Amino acid sequence: MQNVSLAPDGTEYQIPTEEENARERETLIKITEEQRALGRKIVAVQGLGFVGCVMATVVADATDKNGEPIYFVHGHQRASKRSFWKVPVINSGEPPVSSSDPEVPQIFHRTVVEKKNFRATSEDSVYSLVDIVVVDIQLDATKPSFGEAEKGFCDLLAFREGIRMLGQHIRPDCLVLVETTVPPGTCEKVVKPILEEEFTKRGIDIAVNPPLVAHSYERVMPGAKYVASIRDFWRVFSGVNQKSIDLCREFLSNVLDVDNYPLTQLDNTNASELAKTMENTYRAVNIALTLEWARFAEQIGVDIFKVREAIRKRKGTHDNLLRPSLGVGGYCLTKDPVLANWAMQTLFGLEGTLGMAIRSVNINDTMPLHTIDLIKTVIPELTDVNVAVLGVSYLENVGDTRHSPSKVLVEFLRKEFAKVLTHDPYVETWPELEDSQVESDLQAVLPGADVVIFAVGHDQYKGLKPAEVLAICGTKPLIVDCSNFLSDETIAEYKKLGCQVRGVGKGHIV
Amino acid sequence: MQNVSLAPDGTEYQIPTEEENARERETLIKITEEQRALGRKIVAVQGLGFVGCVMATVVADATDKNGEPIYFVHGHQRASKRSFWKVPVINSGEPPVSSSDPEVPQIFHRTVVEKKNFRATSEDSVYSLVDIVVVDIQLDATKPSFGEAEKGFCDLLAFREGIRMLGQHIRPDCLVLVETTVPPGTCEKVVKPILEEEFTKRGIDIAVNPPLVAHSYERVMPGAKYVASIRDFWRVFSGVNQKSIDLCREFLSNVLDVDNYPLTQLDNTNASELAKTMENTYRAVNIALTLEWARFAEQIGVDIFKVREAIRKRKGTHDNLLRPSLGVGGYCLTKDPVLANWAMQTLFGLEGTLGMAIRSVNINDTMPLHTIDLIKTVIPELTDVNVAVLGVSYLENVGDTRHSPSKVLVEFLRKEFAKVLTHDPYVETWPELEDSQVESDLQAVLPGADVVIFAVGHDQYKGLKPAEVLAICGTKPLIVDCSNFLSDETIAEYKKLGCQVRGVGKGHIV
Repeated sequence: MQNVSLAPDGTEYQIPTEEENARERETLIKITEEQRALGRKIVAVQGLGFVGCVMATVVADATDKNGEPIYFVHGHQRASKRSFWKVPVINSGEPPVSSSDPEVPQIFHRTVVEKKNFRATSEDSVYSLVDIVVVDIQLDATKPSFGEAEKGFCDLLAFREGIRMLGQHIRPDCLVLVETTVPPGTCEKVVKPILEEEFTKRGIDIAVNPPLVAHSYERVMPGAKYVASIRDFWRVFSGVNQKSIDLCREFLSNVLDVDNYPLTQLDNTNASELAKTMENTYRAVNIALTLEWARFAEQIGVDIFKVREAIRKRKGTHDNLLRPSLGVGGYCLTKDPVLANWAMQTLFGLEGTLGMAIRSVNINDTMPLHTIDLIKTVIPELTDVNVAVLGVSYLENVGDTRHSPSKVLVEFLRKEFAKVLTHDPYVETWPELEDSQVESDLQAVLPGADVVIFAVGHDQYKGLKPAEVLAICGTKPLIVDCSNFLSDETIAEYKKLGCQVRGVGKGHIV
Repeated sequence: MQNVSLAPDGTEYQIPTEEENARERETLIKITEEQRALGRKIVAVQGLGFVGCVMATVVADATDKNGEPIYFVHGHQRASKRSFWKVPVINSGEPPVSSSDPEVPQIFHRTVVEKKNFRATSEDSVYSLVDIVVVDIQLDATKPSFGEAEKGFCDLLAFREGIRMLGQHIRPDCLVLVETTVPPGTCEKVVKPILEEEFTKRGIDIAVNPPLVAHSYERVMPGAKYVASIRDFWRVFSGVNQKSIDLCREFLSNVLDVDNYPLTQLDNTNASELAKTMENTYRAVNIALTLEWARFAEQIGVDIFKVREAIRKRKGTHDNLLRPSLGVGGYCLTKDPVLANWAMQTLFGLEGTLGMAIRSVNINDTMPLHTIDLIKTVIPELTDVNVAVLGVSYLENVGDTRHSPSKVLVEFLRKEFAKVLTHDPYVETWPELEDSQVESDLQAVLPGADVVIFAVGHDQYKGLKPAEVLAICGTKPLIVDCSNFLSDETIAEYKKLGCQVRGVGKGHIV
């Protein structure tokens, strides 16, 4: 079992031996030569995670005026136990991610099986064969202390290693296009120096062949428009020198729908990197604001969601106003403000704090505790109280549990000795909270419930009638609505049936 | 001189004597009877300030299907030395405010002189004659300590007096429509109890005749669409009981363009009051965010304004992102977050702070000091340094100096013993900084300048060519751009001519 990678569906895949790697190297050279002979440029995508694997298919799917593929794409994934399985899965024509977007399986099948111009590998030497590397290495912020994002940092170790590997293999004229969301300054202060160092070691004169580094960030959204959110959307980019900028523009123009979503070029990579983290901080700050006002609204009989709709009538100036909920999850809003603050203090050594950014993350990260406070206004003592949490993903109608606020909710409910059962129609396993069984049948979580929390507004929950819910419960539980899920009419019905109801930002129902 | 009110143009107006007031009472009764005979309802607007005087004309200008005026409007302004002059000015058909909106003088002339259904008075008894009072009393937040908005409070004394006067005069079935931006809770906790108290004193049974109180906030913007921003814009409203709500809806529907800008009714007046303060807090928070990132951008070679444009490409989700500048001025964004925080803590006695709101006000209020820091990166010691500040209003192409950040800039430059001259084409007098002579001729401020600050982006400054500016200066001053006023090309030209240039959020030029 030592050299096996386990796929989510339980299939075991042998990690390649040295011999197999040697054969793979020959295969890569042969394929690459064949593809070059077809007039195609060769691209490697580094990291086949949530963004990388779909980006790879989008690149492979790009065609010229005659409908011929412009690129051949090598997807590269390290041969780790955790991730190697993606290589054989992709090469069978299947996506390594589950998605509600029907285009996802289609584009994998089309590029891998039909066009045969996308192939995955775990062999590092692939980088020596390519014209462009798209860097999609995962990069996270570490927040060592709950609710203290100011202590957050970015561990660049694996990222540096990934870039160093490129420096050891790539041709001097290969464009390194960083697509990962990175702390501002990373291309100039991390990527470029490492490539220069490795180039110099290899005897490449960096005065003649300065590394070509560009940055362009994706704006991918999980859900029904997963592929389109990569391909058919506005892009911002820049590069560390003019040649990088020109090559990046050419590449993005080939791959993306730039006619409908024109590219935006910024002055330098610092600007492009800063734009991505600021963009997400804008949303994090926006949500944090609504959370503070939701708490106020709850205590003065106000429905913050109706207030929000009233404000959003002012299109163009006020319609970005977001809404409060259980809390903020996902991969971007929880970490990007921290990356920027850390970059300012550490990569640039500047004084001060991005205070609005950090404060917003702290408010958002700790927001799930407010739902527990709401419960306690009705049930002060939670020991042995049966709580059913409906929804553990971080977004409606999506099975993505990364940084889900439901995790904080469940953990803190358990700290109060509540008995917590969880349900989600989109989530089979919950990797971030492995000891929690996520049920797909309401019959498994509702019977005997003292509290039912509508944590995430999945469509499936919308069809539930109060009488139906109470029949399964066999109790008259406290109903808690975290995401403006219940209409005023449904709330009135629950009350009529003898339940108490509370809701985040819903002061008008108390 | 004891009983004289001085208009801004220097004209003196005698404040009415008791005899004159007695005659005015008879006149008011006569006019009101005549107007009722024409089938018109009678409205009073309480407070003829920035909002009230224009709102009064909009109400008077409203017509029925036959083009006949629906209302007669009594504008009421207290007979104070500071403000009485507005009464005779309005009654001559002239607006008591200056504006770049050509509709302002037109609508005053049309309603006062042509239709003769708007008239101003300082006589309190007018309130006994009317069907509706629109309350536009000014209400400000007091921030006793610079940069510490958490200590801010709302002094309701004058507002309470105004409402009490209504309670002493109005008919029991008169609708009191509060249009002033008030701390959330004001209608329920201040207006209604005062009216109930005064009604009871007058022998009115409030069980039979509960006071009719509604709240609907304006969204007026100074500038070229002043009148339209009151009349042709979305409105939010609510009332303390069903009759108040119904009367308010009827009134607003008669007066405003509700076909194109439908009304939004909220559950209660707390909600409507909260919506207004949250709406402006949303913008205050938004700006504070950009200010923090502007400082970061300046130090890493990034132009935050280009970053902003890149982010704003995402229409509907990111296009509300505002821009940094010298600071935040005006009447709304500087006070509304404070009103809400004070209401939460004081009117409702709740724990906690609206932290994002308060923090944003502190960042915004102190932002002008950052421009001084920018200057000091080039000129560390400001004693006897000649500084020309171009623009003292708080908004481009508008002469409104209320809470202008230029005031903070000038005051703190003076504390550093700089010699400051100020210029603004739209501002004749600067009531908030009376000892500062505001020049309208650049020849009066530029000669000998060591620093030229483009504080506000008035159009007039946009035509200025660098060579022209330097010719008037006779020096090679440091040029400071606080509002993304200078293009990259213009900055290059200033540099070519030997100037240094700095700008808020403009790291790419250093």
